[in-house]
Amino acid sequence: MLPIPQGFRFAVARAGFKYQGREDLGLILSQYPAQGAGVFTRNRFQAAPVQVARQRLDSHGQVLRALVINSGQANACTGQAGYRDCLQSLSLTGQCLGLDPEHILPASTGVIGQTLNLERWESCLQDLVDNLQYSGPLEVARAILTTDAYPKTAWRRIQTTSGEFRILGLAKGAGMICPDMATMLGFVITDAKVQAKAWQEMLQQAAEQSFNRISVDGDTSTNDCVLALANGASQVEASQGREQELLALALLEICQELAYLIVQDAEGGSKVLRISVRGARDSRQAESAARSIAHSPLVKCAFFGQDPNWGRIVAALGHSRAHFSTEQVRIFIQDRLVFQEGCQVPEDLDALLAQCMSRQEIKLEVDLGSGQAEYQLLTSDLTLEYVRINSAYRS
Amino acid sequence: MLPIPQGFRFAVARAGFKYQGREDLGLILSQYPAQGAGVFTRNRFQAAPVQVARQRLDSHGQVLRALVINSGQANACTGQAGYRDCLQSLSLTGQCLGLDPEHILPASTGVIGQTLNLERWESCLQDLVDNLQYSGPLEVARAILTTDAYPKTAWRRIQTTSGEFRILGLAKGAGMICPDMATMLGFVITDAKVQAKAWQEMLQQAAEQSFNRISVDGDTSTNDCVLALANGASQVEASQGREQELLALALLEICQELAYLIVQDAEGGSKVLRISVRGARDSRQAESAARSIAHSPLVKCAFFGQDPNWGRIVAALGHSRAHFSTEQVRIFIQDRLVFQEGCQVPEDLDALLAQCMSRQEIKLEVDLGSGQAEYQLLTSDLTLEYVRINSAYRS
Repeated sequence: MLPIPQGFRFAVARAGFKYQGREDLGLILSQYPAQGAGVFTRNRFQAAPVQVARQRLDSHGQVLRALVINSGQANACTGQAGYRDCLQSLSLTGQCLGLDPEHILPASTGVIGQTLNLERWESCLQDLVDNLQYSGPLEVARAILTTDAYPKTAWRRIQTTSGEFRILGLAKGAGMICPDMATMLGFVITDAKVQAKAWQEMLQQAAEQSFNRISVDGDTSTNDCVLALANGASQVEASQGREQELLALALLEICQELAYLIVQDAEGGSKVLRISVRGARDSRQAESAARSIAHSPLVKCAFFGQDPNWGRIVAALGHSRAHFSTEQVRIFIQDRLVFQEGCQVPEDLDALLAQCMSRQEIKLEVDLGSGQAEYQLLTSDLTLEYVRINSAYRS
Repeated sequence: MLPIPQGFRFAVARAGFKYQGREDLGLILSQYPAQGAGVFTRNRFQAAPVQVARQRLDSHGQVLRALVINSGQANACTGQAGYRDCLQSLSLTGQCLGLDPEHILPASTGVIGQTLNLERWESCLQDLVDNLQYSGPLEVARAILTTDAYPKTAWRRIQTTSGEFRILGLAKGAGMICPDMATMLGFVITDAKVQAKAWQEMLQQAAEQSFNRISVDGDTSTNDCVLALANGASQVEASQGREQELLALALLEICQELAYLIVQDAEGGSKVLRISVRGARDSRQAESAARSIAHSPLVKCAFFGQDPNWGRIVAALGHSRAHFSTEQVRIFIQDRLVFQEGCQVPEDLDALLAQCMSRQEIKLEVDLGSGQAEYQLLTSDLTLEYVRINSAYRS
């Protein structure tokens, strides 16, 4: 049983938006007005729920009561009608729960271009309310999945001199994951008490160090967002001092755990590649080098094939925007030096690396030898299953 | 029989660098000193033959006599030893042909990190010379292939008031193709007479409009180059006037034909996508939008699955660096409007587009509605076969 932050309840229901025989609508309800925070996709095309959630965070961010999330219909690129549908879905939900709809944040995931089926939404609302006494966060984590293989949760229980607080996160990921943005749906709730500015800053920093550092395929969705609610039910004030540090750290760790789970469950992925670039002139160059490797289909295919193909890593590095001298570059796979001074090291890499290439998680480190800056990124391999999923599934 | 530019001869031999039972060394020999031109990969890691070819073009560009090309070993990231091997391979070849080795340009393609096997090179040189009377350009086009399915050639015979000249091109491609650079191995020969500066400019312009506008996987090799020789044997002076225009046009068309063939024969590709972006504020923004779509694994998988999935096109467009208003964007698949004013057009696209999605070549047009600039790009789809090839083949 996950330790649930005080004052939060959960519910799921079967609307049948796209998937049959499973829950596809999830609700997280706070018994008390909660402080919200959010980070959103930087895609120019922003889904209706992203627009609405942004606005409500701005206007009612300190008195939020609920998150309502559906899978199967993204309500993205659906124009004014889609925007009205989103508002209407929140009105209906608010009525049923006895809440002001302005105090509810929406999130949707699924096929771009499909509008929300409001009839189905409405028809399952009573079930949703009735379900509040039976469900927990794991049920909600399941309801929001699309091509994910398993639900993703992470939590912490933090002891402070002012008492205990709890923090819990849920996420869904799988495809269209890019480090350029908040990259999926993520939800974090805590019973700590935290002020608007501090909470928003913590969330942004945590997202920057976690969800913005994963890449499955370099694509970015219209619906990505991470929403966070802090309802203060624990009475632990965490806007400053040691409590703030503990909350920020717990939030970061939860976001990193969820980010890792998303890459581990990447569409069709069989491996997690932990790419570290160091020795760059500045962090933007380190990032460019790391992304160039992480986005290379050839590198990703090689790891799928368990081939320690440093030639493809070098080729990807060579067309990044990072400055370096080719003679200074060193590449390590799972702590073993494979490339330096412009050449492979004089060893039988296939034999040396055979065992570590079969690992589920592989470390790939690049030292550019040109400075002190560094950057880390998680990515998945590119597999037959990825292509199967994405040529058959319309997302 | 391909119409061969006057004064050129061809030979192939079996060195057995990597492939058995097929030719893997090719020679194009000019009987007269020829004017060279070249465009090269912009990858920071440049293979030894790329470095040597650059230097010889600089120092002996007006009196070149031969191109010698091997497949199976890229001689890239092989350090000083690889550089010396490249020089040595040209010395051996020059001796055997009775040519100054400084007048020979090299090119190699194959696995990064593998040095040239000079013993095998040397042992087949006599066969290569003996073969000069038996082979034509098609044999050379075959010898330079790696994962390509078929040889790629294009030619023109041009009538001018000063007489006829001929121009012929060969290329190999398949993977690691990116619009950022000259993107594969390409060789163009002509018997027109043309001066250094005019020839180099023509080649750069032609490459910019052809090889730099194709993308298979966004990766770029350490060995990419296009080399061109003009030996003047036709006596048609084409450095200025109408003759220059005709030569430049023929060169452009040949490069475009070869570029198309490369995308058509992309590793595992089943389709050619012709992506046009118009209505951009400037051409860099048009290019950014086109590349963002062309590099999206999700878009490429959708086309493989014959799914007119405009949602993925929109998502890719939305994270490009192009400026536009989402309400102004229009998207056309095979001349049919599918998206405008932020929404799908109200038609059954699956039914309407089913037939054209099964085509081998598909037009995808995006009008950003924000200006006059445009950009075109060819790309392939992302298929199961691409992953199979690139997780099994070490390139």
